[in-house]
Amino acid sequence: MYREQIKVLDCTIRDGGLVNAHDFDIDFVRRVYRGVSAAGVDYFEIGYKNSPEFFPGAKFGPWKCCTDADIRSATEGVENGAKVSVMVDVGRVNMDTILPADRSPYHMVRVASYVKGIDKAIAMENRFHELGYETTINIMAISRDVGPELDEAMDQCEKESHAQAIYLVDSFGSLYQEDIQRLVARARRWIAAKELGFHGHNNQQLAFSNTIESIIQGVNYLDATVYGMGRAAGNCTLELLLGFLKNPKYDVRPILDLVSSDFIPLRERHEWGYIIPHMIAGQLGLHPQEALDVRKGPERENYRAFHDRMTSALSV
Amino acid sequence: MYREQIKVLDCTIRDGGLVNAHDFDIDFVRRVYRGVSAAGVDYFEIGYKNSPEFFPGAKFGPWKCCTDADIRSATEGVENGAKVSVMVDVGRVNMDTILPADRSPYHMVRVASYVKGIDKAIAMENRFHELGYETTINIMAISRDVGPELDEAMDQCEKESHAQAIYLVDSFGSLYQEDIQRLVARARRWIAAKELGFHGHNNQQLAFSNTIESIIQGVNYLDATVYGMGRAAGNCTLELLLGFLKNPKYDVRPILDLVSSDFIPLRERHEWGYIIPHMIAGQLGLHPQEALDVRKGPERENYRAFHDRMTSALSV
Repeated sequence: MYREQIKVLDCTIRDGGLVNAHDFDIDFVRRVYRGVSAAGVDYFEIGYKNSPEFFPGAKFGPWKCCTDADIRSATEGVENGAKVSVMVDVGRVNMDTILPADRSPYHMVRVASYVKGIDKAIAMENRFHELGYETTINIMAISRDVGPELDEAMDQCEKESHAQAIYLVDSFGSLYQEDIQRLVARARRWIAAKELGFHGHNNQQLAFSNTIESIIQGVNYLDATVYGMGRAAGNCTLELLLGFLKNPKYDVRPILDLVSSDFIPLRERHEWGYIIPHMIAGQLGLHPQEALDVRKGPERENYRAFHDRMTSALSV
Repeated sequence: MYREQIKVLDCTIRDGGLVNAHDFDIDFVRRVYRGVSAAGVDYFEIGYKNSPEFFPGAKFGPWKCCTDADIRSATEGVENGAKVSVMVDVGRVNMDTILPADRSPYHMVRVASYVKGIDKAIAMENRFHELGYETTINIMAISRDVGPELDEAMDQCEKESHAQAIYLVDSFGSLYQEDIQRLVARARRWIAAKELGFHGHNNQQLAFSNTIESIIQGVNYLDATVYGMGRAAGNCTLELLLGFLKNPKYDVRPILDLVSSDFIPLRERHEWGYIIPHMIAGQLGLHPQEALDVRKGPERENYRAFHDRMTSALSV
């Protein structure tokens, strides 16, 4: 599928950071940035640019509250570097710490929000836009928040934000391709002047096919991660997506190198991918936390117990 | 998706047998049969019923050339047992050894054939039909053999065979959902009175989504395997498929038990699933053999070298 408007965003370090408490060393992040850039990927999301004062006592590596210095260390000097993106959570950023875009090492800010937080998200997006950043709004848990509030949120994103793209985020990995068709058609009733984006999770091995379905339906901003690394079941794999897209600017080989050199060993130490409790959570449309918890304990392979607990919780 | 006509066929032992030289012990096969039957799955494919004289000197376990005694040992006495299926390869069966259906322990015979062997496949299918078996014809490598011979083969299957279903087999795991739409529409031009089936491989993490797409397009015979076990990248996973189908006769929990008890440990000893050389072979539409070979040697994680070798072979 060749369509010039398509933009691929690699969010390996950002979504993958949810697997290892954002604790990648700078050399690793730099290798991934170099590989993703060499592959011709459009954006590289290096982490969350939240502010540490909102996480008192929490332990995490540098990519949850990226400093401009960290971002520079990992990205400066890389030839033909991809544009650098950061994600922010509503209400978790001290805006006084944010420099204007022309004095910072990142280009794009993506504001992640549930439907209910959309007013705050738009206000935040507007601040970043005024500071000169490219912006997107990423509507999370889109399989759960399906009431009329979703229509209202999409309408507001269109009318009140300056975001260049509004992302539909299948946080729980529960959508099927038919759902993607309906969801994009619904979004297009409200969002006409802006691009749409899609971010999938792979609980049901559908992140890639749902991304393809999004493309077919006209979505142009696509998230993926190297070897699918991301929270719980992970994401659409970047190597599959680049292989599917026919734009000659993409070259999958630097991504294959990263999988060989870094992600096969990393997968030995941290788990993501097709894991039965995550599959069950995806089938049932649940937040991944319960499955993440069960994977840490002695019942990690007791799938029937997890299935029965989750289904009975739903039928209360 | 609830549609009464849908039939699910578990082919874990048959396609999974291509991973371990068909060397499952009888107790294992019996456990899988019991679980698959308890899950309400319609058919259980226990292996190939080829004849050993066609494989002189080859070493393999019992499920490549199943005897009726082996099949009985693994299946007799299981309550509400699924119908037992066997697969045969064109030209690899001594028909003198085949008993009539009412004296054998299996119910269905699936004849696997490339497009070029379809005349022989139909002749073979007719013999099994005369012996009283349910039959299907499974057209392999359907992504490669796309010339007018495919139309002719499908026309012959409709007119000259007694098969209850004609399967479209994505042997190389290279089809996208758009391809499924076109392929099923093409098949329906020729095959009107018989059911269609789909058998996917998961090289690009699309076996499940392609199976869903097949269902949407009216395909009613669906193959899947426990935890996706099957040749190279494996197949559509049975636990995902049963979770998607809404027919209340299916119960995913016995399959979850099998994954817990048997398939997690088995996956430690044999590899299948999302493995980069298989992904590359799928993207390029290649037979899995080269990728299987590279996984056995010192270059197993040198993905760039494999990619470059395969793409340059294609461009000669």
